[in-house]
Amino acid sequence: MVRIPDSHPRKKSLESRQKIVDGSSMGLLADSAMIAHGRGEAFDYLLGERTTESAREAIRESAARLGNARRPVISVNGNTTVLAGDGAIRLAAVLGCPIEVNLYYRTPSRVKGLISLLEELRLNVSQEAAPDGFYGDWKETVEGVSLLGESPNFKIEGLEGPRSNCTAEGIGGADTILVPLEDGDRCEALITLGKEVLVVDLNPLSRSARMASVTIVDEVSRAFEGILSCLLNDSEYRQAEWDNLKSLNGSLKEISNHFSV
Amino acid sequence: MVRIPDSHPRKKSLESRQKIVDGSSMGLLADSAMIAHGRGEAFDYLLGERTTESAREAIRESAARLGNARRPVISVNGNTTVLAGDGAIRLAAVLGCPIEVNLYYRTPSRVKGLISLLEELRLNVSQEAAPDGFYGDWKETVEGVSLLGESPNFKIEGLEGPRSNCTAEGIGGADTILVPLEDGDRCEALITLGKEVLVVDLNPLSRSARMASVTIVDEVSRAFEGILSCLLNDSEYRQAEWDNLKSLNGSLKEISNHFSV
Repeated sequence: MVRIPDSHPRKKSLESRQKIVDGSSMGLLADSAMIAHGRGEAFDYLLGERTTESAREAIRESAARLGNARRPVISVNGNTTVLAGDGAIRLAAVLGCPIEVNLYYRTPSRVKGLISLLEELRLNVSQEAAPDGFYGDWKETVEGVSLLGESPNFKIEGLEGPRSNCTAEGIGGADTILVPLEDGDRCEALITLGKEVLVVDLNPLSRSARMASVTIVDEVSRAFEGILSCLLNDSEYRQAEWDNLKSLNGSLKEISNHFSV
Repeated sequence: MVRIPDSHPRKKSLESRQKIVDGSSMGLLADSAMIAHGRGEAFDYLLGERTTESAREAIRESAARLGNARRPVISVNGNTTVLAGDGAIRLAAVLGCPIEVNLYYRTPSRVKGLISLLEELRLNVSQEAAPDGFYGDWKETVEGVSLLGESPNFKIEGLEGPRSNCTAEGIGGADTILVPLEDGDRCEALITLGKEVLVVDLNPLSRSARMASVTIVDEVSRAFEGILSCLLNDSEYRQAEWDNLKSLNGSLKEISNHFSV
């Protein structure tokens, strides 16, 4: 990976870009994954590359709903795995839930490659110090995170083709799904099945963002860090009546402020 | 290429995306070209995927300056060639100017590949009907468009490394350069050399956009079509006193309207 000086004001963004370029040359990502990442870069730039106030509220609400869920799951695609696979592992450890690799453009080799990457990240994360606020055996807890998706045995109703495939132990049986960077059709199908769908999406106007139960308009690794911190250190917060469109309007205003002349 | 139904509201955008994906798999584009395209997609989406009023004014002004130039040149990179190489050929034919392939991440094989693509497009365009308002031998005029860049013999002062390479017949000796999707450093260096730099950039906040003599905040193929039409059918318009920052503020307002809630 190219070394970017610490002083560069957009270091984090450039490192993320490099992760996507590398993941793509390793064959982990679909053809259009880099284009999707570029769209995300533009929106993040407009948000000031920081977690905004309305995103922070959506993060708290998502953390509360994940904490209350009977069977939560984290659904990851290629970009999420490459950008924030380690964050997903930490969250899954704290929630005691599985991670499922679920791809819109599913190929067995890409699923396999992403599961291998997650296994590697799981090993790394298990060797880290436990995050602040975690009590218990971090190594053992992290090692216990199950990684699903390689052998789909369940179909998401209302979708055709390979994009409907998932597992019964993961997305199929879950009541609450944290699903960053999701496609609009799949988000809609999951909502129709009565599941709680928590989306991370930098575009507050996207169909997924408009459909979700709660939308976090933030970069995925920042969103995961925020949820983790809420789960571990903000346990007094209780799930609220949530007006998602109001929250999205907050994000739109935050972006619009960037353009005021 | 995947066939997108005519009825799809975002057909043009999806076709452009496919061109970039194809160009990338053909090795014509740099690693991060798809990411750059994604950023462009996001900004174009915010503009409503249409030529806005302030872009239209910048197009007229650019057409006037190109028409008045002593030695104009069109500088193209990989994305411009793939997305709008045919438009560049038409413009160069009408202006009687060369096209120069000029890459930030220059490799001989990529320059060669892009020149070949432009040769193919030149052949196609030469067989089209002449555009409205053109009088003369279209086929011969198009065949006469010279394609530069393969043998750089000139350096842009103030830049280091391969990105400074260009040709004396093209960018080196030009007084006016139409350069879509340009890097900020190069834009600045060209301005410092006293050249008239006409930029096409979907991000009105980018450094190129802020530095240029005239910035067209529009998708590159639409911008080229607009300039062509002005050159052929709007010859009464005269070069104006141009306040580029005022024009950029117009674009910012047009984007911001998209977010008003």
